[in-house]
Amino acid sequence: MLDRSLAGERFAAEIDAAALERHIEALGAIGPHPDGGLYRALYTSAWQEAQALVRTWLEELGLETRVDAVGNLFGRLRGREDAHVVLSGSHLDTVRQGGKYDGALGIHAAIAAVGALQAAYGRPRKSLEVYVVCEEEGSRFPCNFWGSRAVTGTIRPGETESIADADGVTIGEAMRACGLDPATIPTARRDDIDAFVELHIEQGRILEDEGCDVGLVQTITGMRQVRVEVAGRQDHAGTTPMDLRRDALAGAAEIVARITDAAAAMGRPAVATAGMIAARPGAVNIVPGSCTFTIDTRHSDAAKRRALVATIEGIVAEVAARRGLAVAVEPLMDHEPVPMAAAIRDRLEAAVRAEGLRYRAMPSGAGHDSQVMAPRFPTGMLFVPSRDGRSHCPEEYTPIEQILPGVRVLARTLHALAY
Amino acid sequence: MLDRSLAGERFAAEIDAAALERHIEALGAIGPHPDGGLYRALYTSAWQEAQALVRTWLEELGLETRVDAVGNLFGRLRGREDAHVVLSGSHLDTVRQGGKYDGALGIHAAIAAVGALQAAYGRPRKSLEVYVVCEEEGSRFPCNFWGSRAVTGTIRPGETESIADADGVTIGEAMRACGLDPATIPTARRDDIDAFVELHIEQGRILEDEGCDVGLVQTITGMRQVRVEVAGRQDHAGTTPMDLRRDALAGAAEIVARITDAAAAMGRPAVATAGMIAARPGAVNIVPGSCTFTIDTRHSDAAKRRALVATIEGIVAEVAARRGLAVAVEPLMDHEPVPMAAAIRDRLEAAVRAEGLRYRAMPSGAGHDSQVMAPRFPTGMLFVPSRDGRSHCPEEYTPIEQILPGVRVLARTLHALAY
Repeated sequence: MLDRSLAGERFAAEIDAAALERHIEALGAIGPHPDGGLYRALYTSAWQEAQALVRTWLEELGLETRVDAVGNLFGRLRGREDAHVVLSGSHLDTVRQGGKYDGALGIHAAIAAVGALQAAYGRPRKSLEVYVVCEEEGSRFPCNFWGSRAVTGTIRPGETESIADADGVTIGEAMRACGLDPATIPTARRDDIDAFVELHIEQGRILEDEGCDVGLVQTITGMRQVRVEVAGRQDHAGTTPMDLRRDALAGAAEIVARITDAAAAMGRPAVATAGMIAARPGAVNIVPGSCTFTIDTRHSDAAKRRALVATIEGIVAEVAARRGLAVAVEPLMDHEPVPMAAAIRDRLEAAVRAEGLRYRAMPSGAGHDSQVMAPRFPTGMLFVPSRDGRSHCPEEYTPIEQILPGVRVLARTLHALAY
Repeated sequence: MLDRSLAGERFAAEIDAAALERHIEALGAIGPHPDGGLYRALYTSAWQEAQALVRTWLEELGLETRVDAVGNLFGRLRGREDAHVVLSGSHLDTVRQGGKYDGALGIHAAIAAVGALQAAYGRPRKSLEVYVVCEEEGSRFPCNFWGSRAVTGTIRPGETESIADADGVTIGEAMRACGLDPATIPTARRDDIDAFVELHIEQGRILEDEGCDVGLVQTITGMRQVRVEVAGRQDHAGTTPMDLRRDALAGAAEIVARITDAAAAMGRPAVATAGMIAARPGAVNIVPGSCTFTIDTRHSDAAKRRALVATIEGIVAEVAARRGLAVAVEPLMDHEPVPMAAAIRDRLEAAVRAEGLRYRAMPSGAGHDSQVMAPRFPTGMLFVPSRDGRSHCPEEYTPIEQILPGVRVLARTLHALAY
């Protein structure tokens, strides 16, 4: 479709590539992990330092800055219709030993785009805000999407006292240590957001493999994560014939092999992963009496996701029955695929075409703030490539020439939405 | 065959069942593990206490006691031909959270049998010795069969300094702390042993399932233990399509499922066990980049053992090649099956027949002191049942009425060998 807002007109916003690169390096130096990469966990001193640095950049652009109850940072370019806000950004926190791009690049892109729009077009009709999300990864507290859950009003009462980090510090205590008041969380909820657009690295290698400049996210994958406990019987590995065993690890292994085969057989974008496994008692000469492993199953199509989950449940039940094993499946996370708003997707596609870029529509296999924002606000998302698909590791990298096309698409889209 | 030594004659030795039960309970109270069961690790205070207690029992019978260079305890009923010794016993140490029977019952049985023979028949022709083996399990130091390796002269120079426990204490340091001198280890070697007979619990459930009183061990299984390192590529579990993955855990799981199937397909007594497994980095949402697991493969037939090992190596190589994984296999232990001496097997079988017991010939799927003794001395072994096949756990149990038939067989056999 045409980019109606600029049809026939030159797009005048110029991205400051040098500033963008400086920002990537400067933020990418905050929170070094001793074993390599970054670790900016929520409410730590590294996180506070990072937030303060980004705030200086927002202020250099003359944006009005504000930190909400949970520590989300906003930088506002006030529009003529100030009750309507177009938001862009991503999260400031990282996983343990993460890289400089996951989350951070969405912040840098939003700053670059808003700065360029302000310089070229001045005051917008709707207010434009850079959204520096306090937390998304769940890497310190099991509180994923803390920032966007505050903004959407979906933090549940009591979470600040029930959620604790590995040292037993509750998220409420950590907030107070940062000067934030848990009692004010409800004030973080917003009802004035007309649109949210998030730029993110793909964290996979599809764009790179297919030679695309950007990816337009149609849907954020539906996900089910479970912990499976397999109980068999502990036996001596030398004296117990195979036909008398109830080997918990052999059963778990058959399940893992078959469910990953089943996801592969379903075809892209179906995925199934066993990421953790432990067998007890864990000695070379003892048949394991119990085994615990996790299954992460994803699909961006709701019906196919259900079909894959059902196939996996069938495999688990069949293997357990045949091998005389007891199985308990504990759900850890389960959510349906989240479609991006058609109106925003259309704006993004028009901007991509106006830029003359190679692109593809694709699901996001990873979770993002956009999936929390989308049920409440019209939300869209675009990907730039990840070199070799690497992410959540120090090797995470996207060269500036692969970043700038995405930032230009973001700027055009924000222009179409806000001016 | 007939028990020639007593053909047509009543066997006069009477086992003191009450004393045997008292001994099981008294030794079974030494070295309680805080989480249940026993832990009598080599050269610990619990081990010293246990050795001292058994020594009092040997002395109560009037046996000449002696502790050798590594801490093996012997109780001798001196025979007329003192240069020839018939030995019986088993090991004093236990696994972590082990039971009262593994090892200990072979000591109790030897004491009961020698005591009964002395009472009924007096001084033997050959000397009879109770052998209280210092260590067999390798549960503190990776030094399995320390006691019988000393007696057979197969401890290698330097082992006392190179083998250390989890706290970094070398076995030599631990010996010195017990008043033992590592330099004297060569003096523990013996050349005067005419026969060794070991009674042990089966540690499996074949005797129980088949309603047998005792098992006569034909061969101690050949064993190969390896550690397998599988290297793939760490990836994001949501963004990496199945067809682009090199999932180390999925590959390891397929290997584990297929090698256990292969051992089952070969039939008894082939066994293959994966007892330990770990996937790294070990997060629910990350495709494991590497996975380590162990394989324990056993067969009592040398040719079939080689065939099973070759089948397993073929599976490992095929899975690795197909999945694009690198595999490194590190051998931990590898030994051929060890046959028991025909002459001792015949004596045991004659004794079983004389007692009118139900028995079966069988391989031992577990390792025992007998496999170290057998290459140097005529060696035989008999099993009594293990309730529900349990062993290496606090639930290990054999009721006295299932112990006594085995002890009578041992006494008859020692009589045939020594009188």
